[in-house]
Amino acid sequence: MKPVTNEVEVKTKAAKAASKKLACLATDIKNKALFSIADELIANEKSILAANQIDYSEGEKAGMGTAMLDRLLLTPERIRAISSDIRSVAALPDPVGETFEMRTLPNGLQVGKRRVPLGVIGAIYESRPNVTVDISAICLKSGNAIILRGGKEAIHSNLSLAKVIQNASYPVGVPEGAVQFIESPDRSLIGQMLKMRDTIDLIIPRGGAELIKYVAENAAMPVVTGGIGVCHTYIDHNADLDKATAIAYNAKVQRPTVCNALDTLLVHADVAKNYLPRIVTEWGKAGVEMHCDQRALAIIQPLPSLKVVAASDQDWGREFLALVAAIKVVDSLDEALEHIERYGSGHSEAIVTEDYTAAMRFLNEVDAACVYANASTRFTDGSQFGLGAEVGISTQKLHARGPLGLKELTTYKWIVLGNGQVRP
Amino acid sequence: MKPVTNEVEVKTKAAKAASKKLACLATDIKNKALFSIADELIANEKSILAANQIDYSEGEKAGMGTAMLDRLLLTPERIRAISSDIRSVAALPDPVGETFEMRTLPNGLQVGKRRVPLGVIGAIYESRPNVTVDISAICLKSGNAIILRGGKEAIHSNLSLAKVIQNASYPVGVPEGAVQFIESPDRSLIGQMLKMRDTIDLIIPRGGAELIKYVAENAAMPVVTGGIGVCHTYIDHNADLDKATAIAYNAKVQRPTVCNALDTLLVHADVAKNYLPRIVTEWGKAGVEMHCDQRALAIIQPLPSLKVVAASDQDWGREFLALVAAIKVVDSLDEALEHIERYGSGHSEAIVTEDYTAAMRFLNEVDAACVYANASTRFTDGSQFGLGAEVGISTQKLHARGPLGLKELTTYKWIVLGNGQVRP
Repeated sequence: MKPVTNEVEVKTKAAKAASKKLACLATDIKNKALFSIADELIANEKSILAANQIDYSEGEKAGMGTAMLDRLLLTPERIRAISSDIRSVAALPDPVGETFEMRTLPNGLQVGKRRVPLGVIGAIYESRPNVTVDISAICLKSGNAIILRGGKEAIHSNLSLAKVIQNASYPVGVPEGAVQFIESPDRSLIGQMLKMRDTIDLIIPRGGAELIKYVAENAAMPVVTGGIGVCHTYIDHNADLDKATAIAYNAKVQRPTVCNALDTLLVHADVAKNYLPRIVTEWGKAGVEMHCDQRALAIIQPLPSLKVVAASDQDWGREFLALVAAIKVVDSLDEALEHIERYGSGHSEAIVTEDYTAAMRFLNEVDAACVYANASTRFTDGSQFGLGAEVGISTQKLHARGPLGLKELTTYKWIVLGNGQVRP
Repeated sequence: MKPVTNEVEVKTKAAKAASKKLACLATDIKNKALFSIADELIANEKSILAANQIDYSEGEKAGMGTAMLDRLLLTPERIRAISSDIRSVAALPDPVGETFEMRTLPNGLQVGKRRVPLGVIGAIYESRPNVTVDISAICLKSGNAIILRGGKEAIHSNLSLAKVIQNASYPVGVPEGAVQFIESPDRSLIGQMLKMRDTIDLIIPRGGAELIKYVAENAAMPVVTGGIGVCHTYIDHNADLDKATAIAYNAKVQRPTVCNALDTLLVHADVAKNYLPRIVTEWGKAGVEMHCDQRALAIIQPLPSLKVVAASDQDWGREFLALVAAIKVVDSLDEALEHIERYGSGHSEAIVTEDYTAAMRFLNEVDAACVYANASTRFTDGSQFGLGAEVGISTQKLHARGPLGLKELTTYKWIVLGNGQVRP
C-alpha cells in the first residue's frame, strides 16, 4: 500500500479540514485575504519573475514552441493584471449563505435551500501560471478549499505564486491549509488525486483536449470539463450581410486563440456568392487562412491574395485556436444544424438571420452551452455575461453549463425549520 | 472489438436519436402519453401479473428473503398505485422550455438561460419493478430518453412493463426509441453502459450500497448517487421533550425501511435521564430494537420489556432500514456535530432544541442534503417538499442535492439574442 506520508493524501486531508472552517468564514475576511493576495503579488514581483525565468529558460532549452512560451511567461504587466483580477473577485457578491426558494408548507414547515460551498476543489492544469492565482481567488471567495496541481513546465512559477497566496491569506484569517499546492512532479499523483472521491468534491481540468479527456474518464469524483470550443457561425439565406460580416469577422479575428472563437463558417448556398467575397476579403486583410469545401472554393479561389486551401475531412470539428477558419456552403438550415450536431463541441454556436422562425429553431435545436442569434460567439465569457470572474467554461450538461463563476462553485442544502412536525 | 450489433450500443444509439425529438416535444403530447401509459398498465394487468409471477416463483426457488420478495411482488393494488403515480407526473408542470435569469446587457444583448432536457438518462436498478415505470414517466415528462437496466431477478416483470410503456406512448407521439430496455442478463453490459460518455448524459443507480458504489466509481459520465441515508436526530439539552419524543418516534417508526428514517439517536447528557425513558418506552411499544452505548444502556437497561443490546462499533454509521436504532449519549452539541460529521451519509440530519444559537449552528455546520430543526427527517421526499415525483434522493453535492424531481433532470443553455453585436 501507499505510504501515509504521501503528499497528495496529506495535503488533501489538510484541505478537507480547512474547508470546514472556510465554509463558515465571514465575507469580509475572505475579501481581506483577496486584497492581501493582490498586494503581496505586487510586493513579491521580483521573486515571482525570477522563478518564472527559471521555467522560461528550461522551456526554451527543451524546445518549447513560441505560443506555449508566451503562455508560460510572466511580466510585471501580467502580474499587475492578475493582481487587479483578484480585486475584481473581492468586489463580487459572496454567493455563500444565500437562502432561496424558501416557502412554508401547509403543515407549517418552512423549507428552502441555502447556498453552501462545494468543499474541496482539485485543479489540474497546464502551463499558464495565472491559473494558480485565478482559481485560488475564486475558490477562496466561494468558500472552497483548493488543491492545485500545475504542469511541471511552470513548477517554479506556480510554487512561488502559491507561497504568496498562502502567506498573504492565512495571517488575515483564512484557515491554514485552505490552499494546497502539490509540489512533486510525479505524474502518478494525478491518478491518485482522481481516486480521492471522499475528500475532493470536484475536479476542474484546465488545459489541452488530452488532459481534459484523461481527467474526465478517470476521475471517480465529479468533473467539470470544458474549454474545448469548436464553434460554428451559420449565415442563413436571408441574413443581414452587414451584420453577418461584422459578426464572423469579430468571432474569428478579435482573439483567435481562445475557445469561443469561430472555427467553421457555414454559409447558405443562396447567399454564398454575395456574402463570401465580403467576409473573406476582410478575413484576408487580417491574415486568416481559409480551409474551404469545394463550393466555397469555387467562389473564393478566384479572389486575389488570400490564403485559401481545400478543406480536408479533419478541418470539420477542428478547434483551430489560430487565424484559421474552415468554410462550408450548405443548402439549408437543416444541413447547418446537422453539421453542428455532428461536429460541434457543445460550446458556442451562432446563427445570423433576419428570419424569426429560423432563429427560434436554431436556438431551440442546437444543443450547446451558449446559442446565439445575430451576435458574435466571442461573448461566451463570465465577465461578458455578468458573472464576474470564471474558472472556465463548461461544455457538460450537469451542474453548470457555460461560464463557471462563483455561484457555480457552490451547491445548496435543504433547510427545514419546524416546530415539532412529524410525517402523518 | 465489440460487434456493432451489441444490444447496449444499438439501443443507446436509438435513444440518442429519439432524445433530439423528445427534447422539443409539446407538453400536451407528453401528458397524453403518460395518461395512455397509466391506462394501459391497468388494461394489461393480467399479463403484467403473470410475468411478475414468474420472477416471484424463481425468487422463491432461489431462496430470496421475504423483504426482497415483497419488493419484487406486484399486485393489482400496486399496479393501480403505479398507474395513479403516473397521472400525478402528468399533472406536474413541464420544466422544459422555461427561460429564466434573462437580462439585457449594456450593449443591448439579451442573455438568459433556457431549461432543456439532459438528453439520455441511464437507469441501473435492482428488484423493485415499479422503478421501470416511475423513472420512465419522470424521464418522459422532463423530455429525456431513458435506457433501463433492471436486475435479472425482475426481468420478466420489467420487460412486461417496458413493453406496456412503449406500446402506450409511441402511438400518441413519443418518438420511437425514447424508452429502451436492456434485455440481456449479461452483466458486462453494465460496464459497457458506464463507458458510453458520448451518448448517455447521466446515470442513475438505484439499489443497494454496493451497486451505487460500483456505478459511481466506474461510470465515465456523471452519476447522481444517493439513497444511502444514515440519519441522526440529536436531542439538545434544552429540547422540548414532547417534540423530541414525537419527532424521534416518527423518524424511526413511521416507515423504518426507507432512507430518511432515523438510524442513530444522539441525546445530550443533561437531558438523557429525563428523555430516554420516554422515547424508548414508545419505541419499545412499536417493537424497536435498541443498540445503546454504555451511558444510554445504564439508563435504559433497567426499564422493563425492551429489546436492548450494547452497541458495537459497527452500529455507528449503519443504515438499519428496519425497526432498529442506535442510541448514544453525548456531552455537547460539538460532540453531536463531530459524530454526524464522521458517521453521517450526508442525507438528512435533525436537531431538536429550543436554543436559537444551537439550531442555527446545526443548520449551518452539518454538511448534508437536508438539515432539520425540530422536525422529523421523514419529510425528506420530493412530494413532501413540493417537487412532485422524484427519481431518488441525491447525497452528492453537484447538480442537485436532496430529492430529485423533474427540474433536476434538466439542464439549461444560455440563450443570446443579438442585433449584430460584436465584442470590442
